[in-house]
Amino acid sequence: METKQKRILTGDRTTGKLHLGHYVGSLKSRVELQHTYETFVLLADVQALTTHFEDPELINSSIYDVAIDNLSVGLDPEKVTLVQQSQITSIAELTVFYSMLVTVNQLRHNPTIKTEAKNYGYADLTYGFLGYPVSQTADITFCNADLVPVGEDQVPHIELARKIVRKFNDMYGTSIVEPQVKLSTVGRLAGLDGNAKMGKSMGNAIYLSDTPEAVWERVRNAVTDPARVTINIPGTPEICNVYKYHCVFNEAEKDNIAELCRTAQIGCVACKKRLNAALNAMLDPIREKRAYYEAHRGEVRDLIIEGTRKANVIGNENIHAIKEKMHVLI
Amino acid sequence: METKQKRILTGDRTTGKLHLGHYVGSLKSRVELQHTYETFVLLADVQALTTHFEDPELINSSIYDVAIDNLSVGLDPEKVTLVQQSQITSIAELTVFYSMLVTVNQLRHNPTIKTEAKNYGYADLTYGFLGYPVSQTADITFCNADLVPVGEDQVPHIELARKIVRKFNDMYGTSIVEPQVKLSTVGRLAGLDGNAKMGKSMGNAIYLSDTPEAVWERVRNAVTDPARVTINIPGTPEICNVYKYHCVFNEAEKDNIAELCRTAQIGCVACKKRLNAALNAMLDPIREKRAYYEAHRGEVRDLIIEGTRKANVIGNENIHAIKEKMHVLI
Ligand code: SF4
Ligand code: SF4
Repeated sequence: METKQKRILTGDRTTGKLHLGHYVGSLKSRVELQHTYETFVLLADVQALTTHFEDPELINSSIYDVAIDNLSVGLDPEKVTLVQQSQITSIAELTVFYSMLVTVNQLRHNPTIKTEAKNYGYADLTYGFLGYPVSQTADITFCNADLVPVGEDQVPHIELARKIVRKFNDMYGTSIVEPQVKLSTVGRLAGLDGNAKMGKSMGNAIYLSDTPEAVWERVRNAVTDPARVTINIPGTPEICNVYKYHCVFNEAEKDNIAELCRTAQIGCVACKKRLNAALNAMLDPIREKRAYYEAHRGEVRDLIIEGTRKANVIGNENIHAIKEKMHVLI
Repeated sequence: METKQKRILTGDRTTGKLHLGHYVGSLKSRVELQHTYETFVLLADVQALTTHFEDPELINSSIYDVAIDNLSVGLDPEKVTLVQQSQITSIAELTVFYSMLVTVNQLRHNPTIKTEAKNYGYADLTYGFLGYPVSQTADITFCNADLVPVGEDQVPHIELARKIVRKFNDMYGTSIVEPQVKLSTVGRLAGLDGNAKMGKSMGNAIYLSDTPEAVWERVRNAVTDPARVTINIPGTPEICNVYKYHCVFNEAEKDNIAELCRTAQIGCVACKKRLNAALNAMLDPIREKRAYYEAHRGEVRDLIIEGTRKANVIGNENIHAIKEKMHVLI
């Protein structure tokens, strides 16, 4: 019996190159999921405009950067569909339709909007930013995605998306797929500097496109157990940022390292070199693929254009069926 | 020297047949303006959904009703372009783009939103309703309309539209036309029942499509000067709803009627019959045109589809140029 693959909608805002935080948080599992699910990767350039509207040139170069990041970590261009958000008219149309079905209060009380508004320090929220869960609902449903791989913090958005879709289907008799959360178990990656979050604005990001030298620079400057002022003082790996990275990126050695640290048999510099080796072992094949795609940007462009074309066919078919049910076709 | 006609964007929400209030408030001047300006008439079915989203079937039949109302009052299908809003993807796309440039507070403090929210009694404003001025800006600018004929109450919306366009042009170096207000001088038509507004929900509307019998029914039941309990008591035309209608629809006779009323030389029934005759004299040629279009609905459909197609060509060209400036074309 032939069964149809379920469709996953995932993606990244095109606000700059992707870093290890993105890798751990979503790219890594995305690479695995592509074998089980039909994978749509949204290059979210319109969503990027909600916070970076003053920097359109960054958004343009980031469309390529993010596409190349995704391809370099191992997404198979034969399997996945790259979709440039700003070129999908059905997303904009659905955003407008859905905006009738959600109240301002629902959006204001959405915990993610609350947090993000606080993070970005907007005294004066833009209308578009407030409507982020509405356009996200459109992103997911234009292609009737079955599943959305997200972290715990994004769950309230998907809950709201499901509510909107349910209300829409009830009202118009449409059959838009109610998307389901595919919870990713990996948490947020802290910075090596001790900051709880890795990010460009934190100045602590290790990019997937970083050179070995740049990676070592970050690792070398990592904040370790402050008690270890000399090499013969035993350390407490649990409070060390480098050890946390060993746990994520160097599982094979992590127990051994913890032991050596607790017994003062390894110095922090040597320990950092081991982490550095592990990171570069992971990054080297990514760099190799990147070199190819950087040298073939025309191919990347074609992949984006072809994926977007395919997505538009699907989106336009869906929006036509939806408009029919909404009785706006004459 | 050949000069290009300026473009006007006008239109109606497709929430039902149009009545004398619409005629006096906009249709009448629209008929005149078509000779001077290139006229786009938006059949605002998406905007209709912001308040009537629970009744899509009404919106569908109203697309025809509103188109036929416009054609019947004298809009020349050779001159004007009928545009079905829900089919113009560039409007949805611009709505999304503009939504980054306006704050929730700007929208909340917009006087029209305040009033309308109060009128419709929304305890819980929808996101789409709050964004009405944003989507209106998209309606006007998708085709780079130069002028928008509106009443005094709509001026704050157009002011906000100009602000959004200015900010957008400044930010992206686009050259979207900043629309200007073409103030219509005619005020709001009161109901013959004494209600300050004519409307379907008030149950006092005289529709352009009403039969002579239906018109007489409304006129016959009009509230006049309550002091005139018998025919030989002189009246005060200034406080009489029928007299107000004579002033709008029967200018030739109004002075004579005021005189006859003040001197008790005419009874209210006779006076109403005169108004009825004036209204039907105006409505008869409209009825004649309507009969033609009702018998040729296929022709109306073709006009809407052809106008919408033309508008989409213009809108898509504009959105392409805008996206180029926004650097989201790869
Ligand atoms: S030896 Fe390694 S785990 Fe121990 S404190 Fe130093 S860097 Fe951290
Ligand atoms: S005569 Fe005419 S103007 Fe005078 S009160 Fe009657 S209806 Fe009104």
